[in-house]
Amino acid sequence: MALKKKPVTGMRDILPAEMQVREYVMNQIRETYRGFGFTQIETPCVEHIENLTSKQGGDNEKLIFKILKRGEKLKLETAESERDLVEEGLRYDLTLPLARYYSNNGAQLPNPFKALQMGSVWRADKPQKGRFRQFTQCDIDILGDASSMAEIELILATTTALGKICPNNAFTVRINDREILRGMALYCGFPEDSLDSVFITLDKMDKIGTEGVEKELLEAGYCQESVAQYIKLLSEVGHDAAGVRKLGEMLSQVLPKAVTDGLAYIMETVSDVAETEFSLYFDPTLVRGMSYYTGTIFEVSMEGFGGSVAGGGRYDKMIGKFTGKDAPACGFSIGFERIITILMDRGGEVPGEQPRKAYLVEKGMDDARFCEIMRQAMAERKNGVQVLVAQMNKNKKFQKEQLGKEGYIEFVEFYREALKE
Amino acid sequence: MALKKKPVTGMRDILPAEMQVREYVMNQIRETYRGFGFTQIETPCVEHIENLTSKQGGDNEKLIFKILKRGEKLKLETAESERDLVEEGLRYDLTLPLARYYSNNGAQLPNPFKALQMGSVWRADKPQKGRFRQFTQCDIDILGDASSMAEIELILATTTALGKICPNNAFTVRINDREILRGMALYCGFPEDSLDSVFITLDKMDKIGTEGVEKELLEAGYCQESVAQYIKLLSEVGHDAAGVRKLGEMLSQVLPKAVTDGLAYIMETVSDVAETEFSLYFDPTLVRGMSYYTGTIFEVSMEGFGGSVAGGGRYDKMIGKFTGKDAPACGFSIGFERIITILMDRGGEVPGEQPRKAYLVEKGMDDARFCEIMRQAMAERKNGVQVLVAQMNKNKKFQKEQLGKEGYIEFVEFYREALKE
Repeated sequence: MALKKKPVTGMRDILPAEMQVREYVMNQIRETYRGFGFTQIETPCVEHIENLTSKQGGDNEKLIFKILKRGEKLKLETAESERDLVEEGLRYDLTLPLARYYSNNGAQLPNPFKALQMGSVWRADKPQKGRFRQFTQCDIDILGDASSMAEIELILATTTALGKICPNNAFTVRINDREILRGMALYCGFPEDSLDSVFITLDKMDKIGTEGVEKELLEAGYCQESVAQYIKLLSEVGHDAAGVRKLGEMLSQVLPKAVTDGLAYIMETVSDVAETEFSLYFDPTLVRGMSYYTGTIFEVSMEGFGGSVAGGGRYDKMIGKFTGKDAPACGFSIGFERIITILMDRGGEVPGEQPRKAYLVEKGMDDARFCEIMRQAMAERKNGVQVLVAQMNKNKKFQKEQLGKEGYIEFVEFYREALKE
Repeated sequence: MALKKKPVTGMRDILPAEMQVREYVMNQIRETYRGFGFTQIETPCVEHIENLTSKQGGDNEKLIFKILKRGEKLKLETAESERDLVEEGLRYDLTLPLARYYSNNGAQLPNPFKALQMGSVWRADKPQKGRFRQFTQCDIDILGDASSMAEIELILATTTALGKICPNNAFTVRINDREILRGMALYCGFPEDSLDSVFITLDKMDKIGTEGVEKELLEAGYCQESVAQYIKLLSEVGHDAAGVRKLGEMLSQVLPKAVTDGLAYIMETVSDVAETEFSLYFDPTLVRGMSYYTGTIFEVSMEGFGGSVAGGGRYDKMIGKFTGKDAPACGFSIGFERIITILMDRGGEVPGEQPRKAYLVEKGMDDARFCEIMRQAMAERKNGVQVLVAQMNKNKKFQKEQLGKEGYIEFVEFYREALKE
């Protein structure tokens, strides 16, 4: 029986043209983040199933690729549930493994620690356009820094990287804080124990609009005055740092002013320092799905492109799940696959790629001359030229067209003897 | 219950110092191979279990990480064997997925296709020093080229890359051909159907020496004259191109002369063209484990370092397993993890790394001055300097020592006011 030629369901082979764009973008991200003092690290792709199913990953935990136990550990006869068959799985993100890494290696790392990760993650999502079961994430995180400097550096670094990769795109950074979200809802009289469900509704703002949110909250049975006040507050609050400070005064009964002042300070500093152009505003409706966020949250969207291209926030409670002692943590993740999709849709041109040269050598070239040709290729390569040496095919025109697709625009043809007319 | 801090069995967290060396080596390999016209591609880490267990992988097939079926496909109650639970697994090498990739995408690729792959592979080996269950492979392969040009380019490219990474190491390329191996054994009278077992013994030469090989062959019951003639032939054959040609004349009854002439031609051309210094010789005892090799095989060893640092060969029958039609294929794989181990053992110094600068900012800095400091950092970063901005810790000396380990050798300290005596 023939073997299977297609990739497994939901995953894909990456062809040379896209790979070139991916490598370019990765290098831009890596170089930018290094400039900001982030240090690259790596964790295994395989993680303990206990860690992967510890409720840190929300819905992603339903999508884990689980790895079968091996050898004597696999007791198929007595296995009663899936859990009996499994002790490891593929990581669904880079944040949980980073928290494990920091817990395991913290003593050997500088404090604070600025981590850069680029790697594959796996989620067994329903296959659909633009969504794959294996995809790349590019994350930066600052661990051990409770101050706003973490947020400021993360936003500056990420916007600088995005500005380099997509220099012609206007983009927007929206920012909020989980505590401000809570404060606003409490202020309007929503009960403490209902907040999670209120935010699940609020998170749909993109899709169902203000009216939809209002309707859903009323249908859920929340007090009419609370809902009305909440909707009014959401629409009236100012979106700049001054607006955030003013909001802080309004919420002072339910929220320490340090929270709103901190957010305003982040906004002011970033606006003052950033060299990349983007608009930054406070978005009181920004929720972000993951339950592990504890403070500031942010999301970047790009003009002409639905959905976010980067997002992140502060998660000060995750490391404590490993060590028993909480440690400050804040991260920003670039939606790498989205960026690649945008760039490929636009033709996948990569700036600064060197032109490539192909030597096409007729078959049956005598040995001494072939050595000479190869030496010439080696000399050019030493000087940094990309040189492909290939046997000349019968259909030379087709061969050159195919190579043209790979970026070859210079051909040197070597014949055994002078061409006849 | 606290989550697990250690990585899963046999896998490991990669710390910043090693990561720096890994990135450096990867860049060197990538740049060198690109210079030779190799094009980077990627296949999914997850592969069909049918492909992974198709006898292409030899013993590696016993070490596959298998992935549990999901949802309705998983029928635990009726599952009778492991195979019922599984339809995918993690790739154990990059060669089999490449053959699938080429079968699937060949029409869109130039012919011949020169592929470069760098990626993780997984094998559930017994954990032991220096061996890990997840490790990186760096492979180049030339698909669709039946000529010796493939071998020549692969050897030139790999030795050039190794010469750049380990410039002070003498290294040796040993070369053989599966057909010559067969020819020599047939010439000495070993029966055709015993050859695999003869080569399994021959492959132990490194460990048990000539005497050990002789003893094992005799114990296996092979004819005494055959064994004696074989051992004599192995020790007397010349190791240069001339020796290979001479061997070809001797074996002309059992082996087409084109095979030995081809190998001699590869050796002559590589010696003539190579710019990196290394010794290249014909090793009639070189077997290489994988059963998929069909022609030339080669292995690189490095002075002062046991075992091989790179290896490869021709495997013209694998693609046919996917398409029904054989296609020429030849590859070379660098033992990435071994190289990293060598470099780390020597201190892990990476040439050309830029010095890093850390700004240490005293707590409580006023807002305007902090913005000024951040703007200064952004300007330096724009000029290519790596600048870390961090809050100054109480124990400044310790902080600077820790950062020193990460390569920070320049510190700029910002205080709120003039230091008092």
